[in-house]
Amino acid sequence: MKKNLFIFSCLIGQMLQAQNLSPIQAVNFSQVKINDAFWKPKMEKVATATLNACILQTEIKTPRIRNFEKVARKQGEKHEGIYYDDSDVYKALEAIAYSLKNNPTPKLEATADDWIDKIAAAQEPDGYLNTYYSLLGLDQRWSDMEKHEDYCAGHLFEAAVAYYNTTGKRKLLDVAIRFANHIDETFRLANRPWVSGHQEIELALVKLYRTTGQDRYLKLADWFLLQRGRGFGRGVIWDQWKDPAYCQDSHPVKEQKEITGHAVRAMYLYTGAADVAVQTGDAGYMGAMKTVWEDVVQRNMYVTGGIGSSGRNEGFSQDYDLPNEQAYCETCASVGMVFWNQRMNALTGESKYIDILERSLYNGALDGLSLEGDRFFYGNPLASNGSHARREWFGTACCPSNIARLVASVGDYIYAQTDQALWVNLFVGSETKLNLGGQEVNIRMQTAYPLNGKVGIKIDPGKATNFLVHLRIPSWVSNAAFAGDLYTARSVAPNKLQVMVNGQIVAYKSEKGYAVLERTWQPGDEISFTLPMQVQKISARQEVSASQNKVAIQRGPLVYCVEGVDNGGDAWNFILPETAKFSEKNSTVGTEAVVALQTQALFYEPGADGKSIKTVLKPLTAVPYYVWCNRGNKGMQVWLPQKIKGLRFVE
Amino acid sequence: MKKNLFIFSCLIGQMLQAQNLSPIQAVNFSQVKINDAFWKPKMEKVATATLNACILQTEIKTPRIRNFEKVARKQGEKHEGIYYDDSDVYKALEAIAYSLKNNPTPKLEATADDWIDKIAAAQEPDGYLNTYYSLLGLDQRWSDMEKHEDYCAGHLFEAAVAYYNTTGKRKLLDVAIRFANHIDETFRLANRPWVSGHQEIELALVKLYRTTGQDRYLKLADWFLLQRGRGFGRGVIWDQWKDPAYCQDSHPVKEQKEITGHAVRAMYLYTGAADVAVQTGDAGYMGAMKTVWEDVVQRNMYVTGGIGSSGRNEGFSQDYDLPNEQAYCETCASVGMVFWNQRMNALTGESKYIDILERSLYNGALDGLSLEGDRFFYGNPLASNGSHARREWFGTACCPSNIARLVASVGDYIYAQTDQALWVNLFVGSETKLNLGGQEVNIRMQTAYPLNGKVGIKIDPGKATNFLVHLRIPSWVSNAAFAGDLYTARSVAPNKLQVMVNGQIVAYKSEKGYAVLERTWQPGDEISFTLPMQVQKISARQEVSASQNKVAIQRGPLVYCVEGVDNGGDAWNFILPETAKFSEKNSTVGTEAVVALQTQALFYEPGADGKSIKTVLKPLTAVPYYVWCNRGNKGMQVWLPQKIKGLRFVE
Repeated sequence: MKKNLFIFSCLIGQMLQAQNLSPIQAVNFSQVKINDAFWKPKMEKVATATLNACILQTEIKTPRIRNFEKVARKQGEKHEGIYYDDSDVYKALEAIAYSLKNNPTPKLEATADDWIDKIAAAQEPDGYLNTYYSLLGLDQRWSDMEKHEDYCAGHLFEAAVAYYNTTGKRKLLDVAIRFANHIDETFRLANRPWVSGHQEIELALVKLYRTTGQDRYLKLADWFLLQRGRGFGRGVIWDQWKDPAYCQDSHPVKEQKEITGHAVRAMYLYTGAADVAVQTGDAGYMGAMKTVWEDVVQRNMYVTGGIGSSGRNEGFSQDYDLPNEQAYCETCASVGMVFWNQRMNALTGESKYIDILERSLYNGALDGLSLEGDRFFYGNPLASNGSHARREWFGTACCPSNIARLVASVGDYIYAQTDQALWVNLFVGSETKLNLGGQEVNIRMQTAYPLNGKVGIKIDPGKATNFLVHLRIPSWVSNAAFAGDLYTARSVAPNKLQVMVNGQIVAYKSEKGYAVLERTWQPGDEISFTLPMQVQKISARQEVSASQNKVAIQRGPLVYCVEGVDNGGDAWNFILPETAKFSEKNSTVGTEAVVALQTQALFYEPGADGKSIKTVLKPLTAVPYYVWCNRGNKGMQVWLPQKIKGLRFVE
Repeated sequence: MKKNLFIFSCLIGQMLQAQNLSPIQAVNFSQVKINDAFWKPKMEKVATATLNACILQTEIKTPRIRNFEKVARKQGEKHEGIYYDDSDVYKALEAIAYSLKNNPTPKLEATADDWIDKIAAAQEPDGYLNTYYSLLGLDQRWSDMEKHEDYCAGHLFEAAVAYYNTTGKRKLLDVAIRFANHIDETFRLANRPWVSGHQEIELALVKLYRTTGQDRYLKLADWFLLQRGRGFGRGVIWDQWKDPAYCQDSHPVKEQKEITGHAVRAMYLYTGAADVAVQTGDAGYMGAMKTVWEDVVQRNMYVTGGIGSSGRNEGFSQDYDLPNEQAYCETCASVGMVFWNQRMNALTGESKYIDILERSLYNGALDGLSLEGDRFFYGNPLASNGSHARREWFGTACCPSNIARLVASVGDYIYAQTDQALWVNLFVGSETKLNLGGQEVNIRMQTAYPLNGKVGIKIDPGKATNFLVHLRIPSWVSNAAFAGDLYTARSVAPNKLQVMVNGQIVAYKSEKGYAVLERTWQPGDEISFTLPMQVQKISARQEVSASQNKVAIQRGPLVYCVEGVDNGGDAWNFILPETAKFSEKNSTVGTEAVVALQTQALFYEPGADGKSIKTVLKPLTAVPYYVWCNRGNKGMQVWLPQKIKGLRFVE
């Protein structure tokens, strides 16, 4: 087996070379110790509040775990909840696994082991595992492509891999292997058509392949990708499915040119396709995905990195249709954007994918989790009249565990490497130890980012060693326009980043959005640079009608918003003068340290007579978007109006 | 059987007397010919556009009819659509049946016969009929109280009764009888607990009882009512169900005191309870319902007669929680209000129930249907920022066929009678022939209501005959306050209605909200009166926070609204002066004749500099609420602000 795997790996290496696909490997979070002022407290909140909420809901408040117990009891009891609820158990397990790595907690691990026993006891003798169909009647299984059996399987595989990697315990991994084998035999080996109604299994199978070395899982992932766009998906019960574009099933994946349909399904699909592409070297997926990616980012993405503007289909609508108050922007879709863009970066070595990853992570995804870690957004609009509120849980509960697993594994996105080169993608206080240039190298990044832009990176090889260091130069440093030219920062001139080694300015090559330093690194070398954190006023292309005559404010990676709570109660009754300049003020939202931004704006308020309107020039305060709605619901806007276009009287 | 029925009827008569329940009978629409300028064109639109839309959706665009064909084919095909879709077929059939009475159309009848053949062919040998479970597997049937099997059965029974009454064809009636017998044997006779997850079967069984004379259906209706509130409904899969109040299952029906939960379920429940009460004379239901009715009307009803303010549960929330833009107010709930209030009126003889019926019918229900009859509202808010639009159809398609059947059977609500008395409840140009005082009496009402308030009623007995005529005096004529004192018209003093017979003013007794004329009627006698159609400014109790500092405008039975399309594009940027007086203007919306109302209001508009706000006194036009959103989506408000409380800048 080992030998086979080796041969296969060599083959992949050749194919990658042939296809010019980059073999960059993301450094796994389990190799990265995070001691960052911004992320570490959030990971601790996830380890406590968020996971406790997931556990409470999974064990007590909803029947998610009880369904597994019912299957094991075999007493003819009925399934409770929704047919995809198993997936929430798996995603919570996956988040627990990540969290245990950074925050070991025996009680959490005991809970996970207990759940795993119950999951294993619910597996059918032939490997099948799905409480909905085991309780409904196994004769019904695999009869409806939309019923998320493969989706739940995918989340099981991800949890199993994560738990095995963290703890070394393989009980859940063995469950996953048996189920994956069952699926492989039922479909690929039996040549039985099956279009996954909710993609997810593809990326999960690649993880299973990487962990077990069994190439049948990689083949099965590719097989699932190849099923799409061939008309196999007709005749299932869900109305929306009848438009195959809803599930990215209107064309074969390698022929897709436009983003369509359900945003989370799309993100998981392309993540899986990228994973397969990097393993097999198949350039067909990559060609299609580059085009689709441009369609997402250049015409269908919010300035927060949020995607899927329409609640109707939880997904994409028309190009440039980016309403702010009605923005759907599911938390899970931003999580998916992080996944996909990481893979696109690894395949191409281009920093533009990390630019989008960072935008989605720090804005559209992170705001899905409350600062205390115990409240969630399902949708993440860019304006609220005060009615949008965080909630404890959802009937369809995909988002809480998804944001939990993302934050718990944020270490996945900081570094990447080849044998001869390091990539620094995100600026997060952290330590890792990598083999570079044949030498073990300690790497230690220190930064208060995103509060300020100072970054120091100690590069400590045991002895002098030559390798490349790629430092990502965020697009907001070097370019006025981003996301194509969907958004443009008009207030600040582009900068050239100054990089120092051991306090001396050094020359570097700019390549694919990175500052590339090639040198023989000595023990104790330190790279330092300061990302310019000027406040940027961003305008949107004129096609984005919802955001015309408005500006969005960004500082570093953080998009800002104006909340009513900081501005006398209302967030929709002011005009920002064109000449407005923002000053920075160190502040807090709850216990979260933030740089608040202040300027003067024209506020319009009812007069005492109930008929007149007063206009007052007074301070306007903006805070990072990710902290909004942590101090009650009082209205919020990301895009700040510079002109009165229409007005309404409201309560 | 006939004899038994006769004895039973006598018994009911005695019980009614004993319990002081009124034996008033609504005159069935099939006995009423409508030639009304307001309603007749709407009934014709239903007969053509609305029913064609229902047929198109049922036969072509959705698999509703195909599911019946699949059951009959017995080839193991799968159910498509949602498990309650059969009910839409039955409701469309019921609407066709009503429509055929007033607008005979051979093609429509042929379609109905074709559907009935397919429905009959899908009935199981034991009488069971439900395509979802016949296709899923009959072993699963009756396992889940929430899966609407009894709800679909109820709509089948209603359709069967309607089609039999219109056409005399009993094929569908026989299908209904077999299914009802199956249900009776499965539950009541087997003493097997079952709480209907969506009430409807109760009222339908009373219709079946009245048509067949079989008292087992009345007993079964009562049995279903008695199941509720006893804890039988636990353990079904739907989360919301876990609050038994969602389905009015927290207390036995006769002990209920508050309105809770899903609005349509509640309306159907109380309609069925009233139907059973009138047949059995059981005063327990009536006592509870009077209390619940007051809770609905006095604390939880919109000025449009709409109910169920919350979209979260499609139902009731807190007392006085009546938001305008977020108002859910499902069309079906207003239809249910019409049903229930008719029964309450028949049980008590009190006109206050018809006041509410009229309010719901002419406003909250009727606006659910577009003027062309081919577009629908599911929810009916009282304010829109322009995003609320009529749609061709819905995934859950209860509303289109429900409003169709209501409009097609509006003749049901005009007259009621006992042997010795006539009640005129609605003012609709129409003819009927009734037996009153032992004499056949032709009745012919002529009116242009609600355009104006003149009503003439020819009372034509073959020979001089003594009987009572009750003319409803709408509460908006005689009282400033209505719905308890939830709403108060402050601008117009109450009137005493002047009634004439043959041109001479006559004295009358006021009783239970009616003007009661007792006399010996001569052939050719004519009653005439003019309802005062002054424009009324209505304010809401201070507990209704969403409508403070605002007035609603009403003229006759019609609530008005301000639409952007009549007012320069926006409907939320004006202040109505306290002193504003409205003038009437004959106008049209499409081809619909309306009395538009005009006054002067302060409009606030952006200045050319984009920073200033101009205030302009200019004409404000209001149109009846039921015609809104027939000229595009441009914003609408029912409650007109008299003070600026807050303002927002919008697109």
